[in-house]
Amino acid sequence: MTYSTEKLSEEKVFKDPVHRYVHVRDRVIWDLVGTKEFQRLRRIKQLGTTFLTFHGAEHSRFTHSLGVYEIVRRMIDDVFDGRPEWDHDDRLLTLCAALLHDLGHGPFSHAFEKVFDFDHEDFTRAIILGDTEVNKVLQHVGSDFPEKVAEVIAKTSPKKLVVSMISSQIDADRMDYLQRDAYFTGVSYGQFDMERILRVMRPREEQVVIKKSGMHAVEDYIMSRYQMYWQVYFHPVSRSAEVILTKILHRAKQLFKEHYLFKYEPLHFFSFFRENVTLEDYLKLDEAVIMYYFQIWQEEADPILSDLCRRFVNRNLFKYAEFDPAKEYKKMAELNALFIQAGIDPDYYLVVDSSSDLPYDFYRPGEEEERLPIHLLMKSGELREFSRESEIVDAISGKRRTDHKLYYPADFLADETTAGEIKKQIRSLLE
Amino acid sequence: MTYSTEKLSEEKVFKDPVHRYVHVRDRVIWDLVGTKEFQRLRRIKQLGTTFLTFHGAEHSRFTHSLGVYEIVRRMIDDVFDGRPEWDHDDRLLTLCAALLHDLGHGPFSHAFEKVFDFDHEDFTRAIILGDTEVNKVLQHVGSDFPEKVAEVIAKTSPKKLVVSMISSQIDADRMDYLQRDAYFTGVSYGQFDMERILRVMRPREEQVVIKKSGMHAVEDYIMSRYQMYWQVYFHPVSRSAEVILTKILHRAKQLFKEHYLFKYEPLHFFSFFRENVTLEDYLKLDEAVIMYYFQIWQEEADPILSDLCRRFVNRNLFKYAEFDPAKEYKKMAELNALFIQAGIDPDYYLVVDSSSDLPYDFYRPGEEEERLPIHLLMKSGELREFSRESEIVDAISGKRRTDHKLYYPADFLADETTAGEIKKQIRSLLE
Amino acid sequence: MTYSTEKLSEEKVFKDPVHRYVHVRDRVIWDLVGTKEFQRLRRIKQLGTTFLTFHGAEHSRFTHSLGVYEIVRRMIDDVFDGRPEWDHDDRLLTLCAALLHDLGHGPFSHAFEKVFDFDHEDFTRAIILGDTEVNKVLQHVGSDFPEKVAEVIAKTSPKKLVVSMISSQIDADRMDYLQRDAYFTGVSYGQFDMERILRVMRPREEQVVIKKSGMHAVEDYIMSRYQMYWQVYFHPVSRSAEVILTKILHRAKQLFKEHYLFKYEPLHFFSFFRENVTLEDYLKLDEAVIMYYFQIWQEEADPILSDLCRRFVNRNLFKYAEFDPAKEYKKMAELNALFIQAGIDPDYYLVVDSSSDLPYDFYRPGEEEERLPIHLLMKSGELREFSRESEIVDAISGKRRTDHKLYYPADFLADETTAGEIKKQIRSLLE
Amino acid sequence: MTYSTEKLSEEKVFKDPVHRYVHVRDRVIWDLVGTKEFQRLRRIKQLGTTFLTFHGAEHSRFTHSLGVYEIVRRMIDDVFDGRPEWDHDDRLLTLCAALLHDLGHGPFSHAFEKVFDFDHEDFTRAIILGDTEVNKVLQHVGSDFPEKVAEVIAKTSPKKLVVSMISSQIDADRMDYLQRDAYFTGVSYGQFDMERILRVMRPREEQVVIKKSGMHAVEDYIMSRYQMYWQVYFHPVSRSAEVILTKILHRAKQLFKEHYLFKYEPLHFFSFFRENVTLEDYLKLDEAVIMYYFQIWQEEADPILSDLCRRFVNRNLFKYAEFDPAKEYKKMAELNALFIQAGIDPDYYLVVDSSSDLPYDFYRPGEEEERLPIHLLMKSGELREFSRESEIVDAISGKRRTDHKLYYPADFLADETTAGEIKKQIRSLLE
Repeated sequence: MTYSTEKLSEEKVFKDPVHRYVHVRDRVIWDLVGTKEFQRLRRIKQLGTTFLTFHGAEHSRFTHSLGVYEIVRRMIDDVFDGRPEWDHDDRLLTLCAALLHDLGHGPFSHAFEKVFDFDHEDFTRAIILGDTEVNKVLQHVGSDFPEKVAEVIAKTSPKKLVVSMISSQIDADRMDYLQRDAYFTGVSYGQFDMERILRVMRPREEQVVIKKSGMHAVEDYIMSRYQMYWQVYFHPVSRSAEVILTKILHRAKQLFKEHYLFKYEPLHFFSFFRENVTLEDYLKLDEAVIMYYFQIWQEEADPILSDLCRRFVNRNLFKYAEFDPAKEYKKMAELNALFIQAGIDPDYYLVVDSSSDLPYDFYRPGEEEERLPIHLLMKSGELREFSRESEIVDAISGKRRTDHKLYYPADFLADETTAGEIKKQIRSLLE
Repeated sequence: MTYSTEKLSEEKVFKDPVHRYVHVRDRVIWDLVGTKEFQRLRRIKQLGTTFLTFHGAEHSRFTHSLGVYEIVRRMIDDVFDGRPEWDHDDRLLTLCAALLHDLGHGPFSHAFEKVFDFDHEDFTRAIILGDTEVNKVLQHVGSDFPEKVAEVIAKTSPKKLVVSMISSQIDADRMDYLQRDAYFTGVSYGQFDMERILRVMRPREEQVVIKKSGMHAVEDYIMSRYQMYWQVYFHPVSRSAEVILTKILHRAKQLFKEHYLFKYEPLHFFSFFRENVTLEDYLKLDEAVIMYYFQIWQEEADPILSDLCRRFVNRNLFKYAEFDPAKEYKKMAELNALFIQAGIDPDYYLVVDSSSDLPYDFYRPGEEEERLPIHLLMKSGELREFSRESEIVDAISGKRRTDHKLYYPADFLADETTAGEIKKQIRSLLE
Repeated sequence: MTYSTEKLSEEKVFKDPVHRYVHVRDRVIWDLVGTKEFQRLRRIKQLGTTFLTFHGAEHSRFTHSLGVYEIVRRMIDDVFDGRPEWDHDDRLLTLCAALLHDLGHGPFSHAFEKVFDFDHEDFTRAIILGDTEVNKVLQHVGSDFPEKVAEVIAKTSPKKLVVSMISSQIDADRMDYLQRDAYFTGVSYGQFDMERILRVMRPREEQVVIKKSGMHAVEDYIMSRYQMYWQVYFHPVSRSAEVILTKILHRAKQLFKEHYLFKYEPLHFFSFFRENVTLEDYLKLDEAVIMYYFQIWQEEADPILSDLCRRFVNRNLFKYAEFDPAKEYKKMAELNALFIQAGIDPDYYLVVDSSSDLPYDFYRPGEEEERLPIHLLMKSGELREFSRESEIVDAISGKRRTDHKLYYPADFLADETTAGEIKKQIRSLLE
Repeated sequence: MTYSTEKLSEEKVFKDPVHRYVHVRDRVIWDLVGTKEFQRLRRIKQLGTTFLTFHGAEHSRFTHSLGVYEIVRRMIDDVFDGRPEWDHDDRLLTLCAALLHDLGHGPFSHAFEKVFDFDHEDFTRAIILGDTEVNKVLQHVGSDFPEKVAEVIAKTSPKKLVVSMISSQIDADRMDYLQRDAYFTGVSYGQFDMERILRVMRPREEQVVIKKSGMHAVEDYIMSRYQMYWQVYFHPVSRSAEVILTKILHRAKQLFKEHYLFKYEPLHFFSFFRENVTLEDYLKLDEAVIMYYFQIWQEEADPILSDLCRRFVNRNLFKYAEFDPAKEYKKMAELNALFIQAGIDPDYYLVVDSSSDLPYDFYRPGEEEERLPIHLLMKSGELREFSRESEIVDAISGKRRTDHKLYYPADFLADETTAGEIKKQIRSLLE
């Protein structure tokens, strides 16, 4: 028996609140879970700052990664196995890609990538191909195996079916995170009948397709996704925390550029400030490290940095107002000027944040690869694009929804000991 | 309207996966939740190292504290309110004590308290009475209010009924954590019918009692607790992580005593090493800070400290064997000697850990205050100790169960490049 | 204390799997539940023939009626009570109307009403106003109280707010049945966040309105309803059973008209056959009685009646094919002729059944009273029709969806011992 | 391919609220479900009169039978398959026995068997071996197959392992009904971690055994069972309904013996009254038929029969008092005499009912076959009787618990228009 087909002497399970149990029989999977790069995902929250709005959302990317693996394992072992369109030799590749698909995520990825201009997907690739424990395990399977796994995750693999199992409009990734995020936040919106969807999935050369009889279950899944986006992922309070987080990173980077003397040297941040991050530096960064710095930065001399850190650590967030950039740009300029007059730096304290997207632009065939439409498999064997069959999905298909909000520190504006008159003006503009 | 009776203009809710919603109408409660000392509980896991065994157990003491508050609120508002035995004036006191009962917990409390010899309950008291945001809010209610809250939490309050709602054999604390820990780990054992138990609770001068008709629901709760202890809280894998954690702290303290030169100065630890911790120091310590140190200590020169930290961070835990101290003390001495011969320091790498306790010693009336028995309220109005009515509880009442395990690094012992013969001997003794 | 305000000495509860507990404090409600007319609802399934498709759907209208009562009770006691727009004097009226709203339902109402041309709502009114135990209880409250309750149920009451709590696009009736039917069938579609919806409901003079912040929860509810209709209520297999049931009743009525000599005199049916049903006759009819007749009719000499009854009792249902009446009327005529040639009476064995409706035509303001739109209560106090705010609901609003199917006995057509050639033709037309 | 190994072209599923889906691939199973004898189980409630206490308990033996089949299927396909101790040739036999194990149950079996002195297990055997659709399907597998299936159900089969999967202290039957009855009643007690128990089950020659690591999950299951018995199955209100039901049957039988002239001839009952029931008669009897008679018997001239029927149909049950037969036999004689004086026939209106049993006498090895102890499979391969390892189960093992209650018509006794003085005496004795 080679390493790639080696089974554990006894199946191992992880107790999982979403899937009851995650089952592992393959030695390779077991070894991957044990690597320090994979264990690192325990120290990165799946939903970043959302726990400040939904207090249950403290779950990590580790749990989500196991979940995606388990869904893919069930697809293969319970549904695809034995069907002529499914190549059994792709099994291990698919399981590994599922398990490792988020491996390159760092703490609060979104904000970090924006401020320090990098892409976590490059780090996923770097971890899989670099000098890491994960790479060693994958190498053990075959010298080109790391590259193959990386290609599936990067969606550049020629194995389109395998790619679609992990990254498509109805993939294991989304099916896990919707259910998991719903479970941990406690909202009911993320529930859909995954058992049913798995049962109606069929492998085809280009992608996973859905038997027509499962159409309603998929409609329900799409609606769940829509609701989760607007109810949870884009919740204005989480976005407020995200805004502050981003501004902390901006401020620290700015201070570094200006040769500000930090009370505690931010060693872990230097390569980020220089936008020259090595894999080793990157792997050292997790949420514990970030939170450590945010805590000690509360004591920094720079008033903006210390204030923003205090806000983030103690959940003293910005308030928000509806904002329409198309109509209200004049008001924005006015506010900007007033903030400066009031001595509150608008670069850090008057922030427009926009959520827009994907979840509402469900089915626009032919744009980027990930936007490939879901196909229904009709009784005749024909494939039909989903929105042609589903009136509900057709109705919402291609409609982009955008929401803009203006974030500001209500407590500063309420403090009338200085610039009272100007602050009053600001407040009346904001209401 | 005074501050103590002030209501929010509109009820606020927290979405909670266990209780659906946590409801807040009282201004005082809302203000307490917003304090930085309470927000700090977000950075301390409810179950310490258990997430290394049950990966879902990443929830914080913040969520649990809100849960205990909510249960007490429902007891009062839905069941006790209007009954002659319940003094409405105790409402706010009880809610505050429920919310704040775990306020003094630090990161991985158990290990920290053992190694650095302090009691988190003293810090709970210190936070409530000291110069803190929490104290300011409580002072606002009344100058003696902080002291009253502290007394309820310390179980020294003359208001025995109020104390029993938060600390007794069937209190809001336990009812929340059993359900919450079950929910986040995904095990089914922690479930019981809390709705029913709340409905049959009745206030009496000395304590909360249970209507006889609710006896079976309470039996089920007691069994849940028993199962949770042995299945989750005392799980040998979590204990392995706990053993390593404790040894890290021991080692660091020892190195400090020996004037070891740390590569990174452990500023946050100094006052702990000196066993002279101020409230300010204490509040700075949370799990992010601990994990930060454990990560950088992986690079320390001391091989024991760096090895143990690597183990904890990357979840490379000790294995365990059953151990009976009464019968196997000789074997233990032998193992100790062999470890030394093999160059593995037994003080850090050969550890006996014992779990024993309370959960099995359910109903021993008349020992410490917390061990007060549950009383059933009979139809006649008479009170009867629970185990006199319940055959099941009687059967297990007062039986202490203890479990000892021996923890060791299996990987070290498997490495036969050095001291191969001795390690072989050790392994055969351990099996 | 008068009867109308009399409370039970201790609250009674019914254990309910959907709402956990149904709480009763009011003597009037307790007495109504005990009447034989209300107990009769135990012998009428909530979902008629659906249990033949979803085997868990064996729950009765009794359980649903308690559920609607409980939801209304929570609306009033937990949300409306104390608000100026809510008249506390309407409480008992609303609770009684909620509890009794389905009182006139008979077994398999839909089919019975169609074949014997009556309306169960007339019987609801008759039971409330007639010589019944229910009437006695209501009379005890006040001599005009039965009439008031009947008016609310009939939607003719001037108390529009009360009516809307029980009959509107988002009422207690629908909220209970969606959740209950989902629970008992085991499908996940019927779930939505009722806790949230209750919390955002506000009484207004004309109707219950929804605070804007609850919009997404209501969207989710509307989608649940849509899914339940097409996935459960209009499931083609249940409709097949419904078709057979209807044809049994037709056949029995026809035989009666033709003075057919029944082996067992169908005493309970006589007044239905004559379309001259008294209240007393009506109340004697429940599903047990119907099933009794269907069983003994299996032994009747008339081959159509006995065959259809055997099919229904033993779940040997008709198969179905898609059918488009607009395009396929010629094919239908052809099939009709062929059935006659094959000796299979098309009046009973070739049936078009159409489902269409309401669930998809969600929000057409201004049609029948029940179709009144849901109104959102904006922060400004203004009311806005729901679909103007919700893009999703707007997208599906007013779109009627209809589905036609053709039902036939596949087993008859497969039996080629007679008319083999003709049956082959029929089969090829049907495929 | 022979019939016994024939697979459906596509797997069929039944939506089930307890197991999510019941999966059928085997043609034989599919055909058995379609027989009229199996469909008949839809017309027999799983919990008899319990729905009068827990209104959700309206589920049928049909749903339970499918559930037991599904659990056994999962045991075999997910856990036993491929293990040397499991004979793959026993698969179909086990599945059929699981599906059909309750086939001979009639309506309200317990009461019927007591009054008319028969055993439903004889009818199970008769249906399997007699001239039935079920027999035809089984014959199709092999001429001795019906006999083999009957033997497994009767526990006389030499295949002890197979028997133990369906009838033992931890079998598929109990695992389904505990979960199912908990689900439909809505109580939380019946929940346990079946996934875990299935995973630790191992086939051995004599019986299914449990891996030591699953001990706690089995403890939890045993406690669930204990709770379900005393909380649900022996609920005094259900027992009251059961008492009345039994008395109706007694009365009808007695009247028949006395040549009473029934207004409506009870054709379906004649062979029962004569205690000479044929299979054909038996199969005609279901709950619809029983309820039909109970309804028409409300109009019988015999005051006892009509009164008892009215009570049952309209849920006007007897009240109960605690009763200790050992101490209170004198009081019982006194009450008997007073009832006669008051003109209330004590044979029908003063009834002692006792619940005692099995659930509490959990583990008495060596009595009847069904009482065989559960065995734990130790790491060493040794088997140990469960209660030797589990302190909790040891504590309750072998302890019989009995509960006696005295049932009587409180309404009769409250009516003081006749025999007022005597009734007062009775009431004071009963309180």
